Amino acid sequence: MLFKRNSRPYLGESGNYFRTCVLLAMGPAILAGRVALADPLPSWNEGSAKQAIVEFVRAVTDKSSPKYVPPEQRIATFDNDGTLWAEQPMYFQGFFAFDRVKTLAPQHPEWKERQPFKAILENDRKALLASGEKGAVEVLMASHAGMSTQEFERIVKDWLATAKHLRFNRPFTDLVYQPMLEVIAFLRTNGFKTFIVSGGGIEFVRTFSEERYGIPPEQVIGSSIVTKFEVRDGRPLLVREPKLDFIDDGPGKPVGIQKFIGRRPIAAFGNSDGDLQMLQWTAAGQGPRFMFLVRHTDAEREWTYDRQSPIGRLDKALDEAQRHGWTVVDMKRDWKQVFPFK
Amino acid sequence: MLFKRNSRPYLGESGNYFRTCVLLAMGPAILAGRVALADPLPSWNEGSAKQAIVEFVRAVTDKSSPKYVPPEQRIATFDNDGTLWAEQPMYFQGFFAFDRVKTLAPQHPEWKERQPFKAILENDRKALLASGEKGAVEVLMASHAGMSTQEFERIVKDWLATAKHLRFNRPFTDLVYQPMLEVIAFLRTNGFKTFIVSGGGIEFVRTFSEERYGIPPEQVIGSSIVTKFEVRDGRPLLVREPKLDFIDDGPGKPVGIQKFIGRRPIAAFGNSDGDLQMLQWTAAGQGPRFMFLVRHTDAEREWTYDRQSPIGRLDKALDEAQRHGWTVVDMKRDWKQVFPFK
Repeated sequence: MLFKRNSRPYLGESGNYFRTCVLLAMGPAILAGRVALADPLPSWNEGSAKQAIVEFVRAVTDKSSPKYVPPEQRIATFDNDGTLWAEQPMYFQGFFAFDRVKTLAPQHPEWKERQPFKAILENDRKALLASGEKGAVEVLMASHAGMSTQEFERIVKDWLATAKHLRFNRPFTDLVYQPMLEVIAFLRTNGFKTFIVSGGGIEFVRTFSEERYGIPPEQVIGSSIVTKFEVRDGRPLLVREPKLDFIDDGPGKPVGIQKFIGRRPIAAFGNSDGDLQMLQWTAAGQGPRFMFLVRHTDAEREWTYDRQSPIGRLDKALDEAQRHGWTVVDMKRDWKQVFPFK
Repeated sequence: MLFKRNSRPYLGESGNYFRTCVLLAMGPAILAGRVALADPLPSWNEGSAKQAIVEFVRAVTDKSSPKYVPPEQRIATFDNDGTLWAEQPMYFQGFFAFDRVKTLAPQHPEWKERQPFKAILENDRKALLASGEKGAVEVLMASHAGMSTQEFERIVKDWLATAKHLRFNRPFTDLVYQPMLEVIAFLRTNGFKTFIVSGGGIEFVRTFSEERYGIPPEQVIGSSIVTKFEVRDGRPLLVREPKLDFIDDGPGKPVGIQKFIGRRPIAAFGNSDGDLQMLQWTAAGQGPRFMFLVRHTDAEREWTYDRQSPIGRLDKALDEAQRHGWTVVDMKRDWKQVFPFK
């Protein structure tokens, strides 16, 4: 209203210099207020999930509400795989690791006869699964270690720019969830600081988090391998070593949150049992809380999976959500649109 | 100028709604610009150090400068002990550890006969030093582990509220450097994100970083012990375990910077050889850089120490600063005032 035609004379006619200054300073806030009047979550169908998000944000930002939370405590954490982007038929970072093994194979002729590499090179899913966790760690180290942090960033960015998800024939970073992009933006507009807390690799997620989610690298928490400072030919480097440093999954998520953020989130968003402890940790804080789970219920537009899925299993966390009344989003029912592309 | 009396008619007379909106939106920026015209570093004597800081900030924030750096890349990292607050005659966290051992002694009668605890209880400096690094780690674990993260925060805050530095008879948090508070504020006003990168304990520094430096916990990096997620009586806890997790000192500083921030600082502030690799890492990036060392040269107002000091030794880093032309601040010459109190 303030910016409509009839408001201008008010500014001009006022002889009050101070009031003019205050109005000038308030301009952006008023503009932001107008933006908030539009639907902040247009890709969400009307329903209890959307309503819960909007009401929570309204309550914690309303200074007259008993639920008001000062801006510096408005910390929101988001799982990545299955919460902000898709994770089927396998975590996307897994595709990166496999492609990387194939790229490096000519330099490793011994891989032709050595599991789990042989299985990857021959697309032998069964042999790969048989190699178990030990095999997975070997693949991880072969594909993620042995280079500098800068080289790794370039390798991942090159891969993301060219690799495609088979089902959608699109870059993996196209498979982010439009409704969740809106939640992130809505929270940020309302003074929240948004963090990713991913079981995936911290440096992997950082290569696209700022561009895709508007979340800068310093607000990304994830699993990591050890890096070591070295000076080579007078040039300092951080070298990625083949050694696990931190697993940011399950009970590791609250540990990662405390380590990196140092305060407890008031809102946490996940989709699987790997997010349970993050949600418990968030729920156990004082004051208003918001715990949120995405349920994958849409085989047509995305995938349907929960209690039995080896990837993104949602079982115990679903029981706990139902017991405590956490917000469970039904993708099929609650999301008007799933991905940014149509 | 825009806010003086003669500017109001311009706003009022303009029939251009769009231009009015732009001016309204610009209000805060213009106000910020006016603030910057005042001396941002009033506790600094005029000289090359002050000039170097001001010129660096001006260059990287001036869009018409070839040295312009976009805001998201304006990362500045600060060592804490000896750079933002004093560190003599011993790192202040050491005093906390000793006081904590004394507080806990009644629950540990065996400490009366066991080193290094016996030495602390008897104020026997020589015996304490003889216990070496192994003894130091034992004291660290006895004083810093075995409680939840929340309990630890309360213990440290209680200590900071009551303990005093003997020489100044003041709380330790009074011994922050006024000129450095001004540098932090000046950088922040100019769109920098300021981080602490401390060899001290991350959770220790976090208890006062926001109040003293305006640096929130999520922008504090430091050394850490392992924490473990546990559910006790249905309540989730993070328990501090007696096991080192990460040493954020020397070559650990670039590692910590990459881990927590994920991008390279363009400005780094330190005071000792423990900051050398952070400064090297900062210097090795592309584009404009600012490397800064505080030199403790003022026995009267603070302390004088450098190449031989067991605490905060400045030797190799000083050579490297001189070789590369990094900014070295001479406390006695460059600082008009040292502490916020007179």
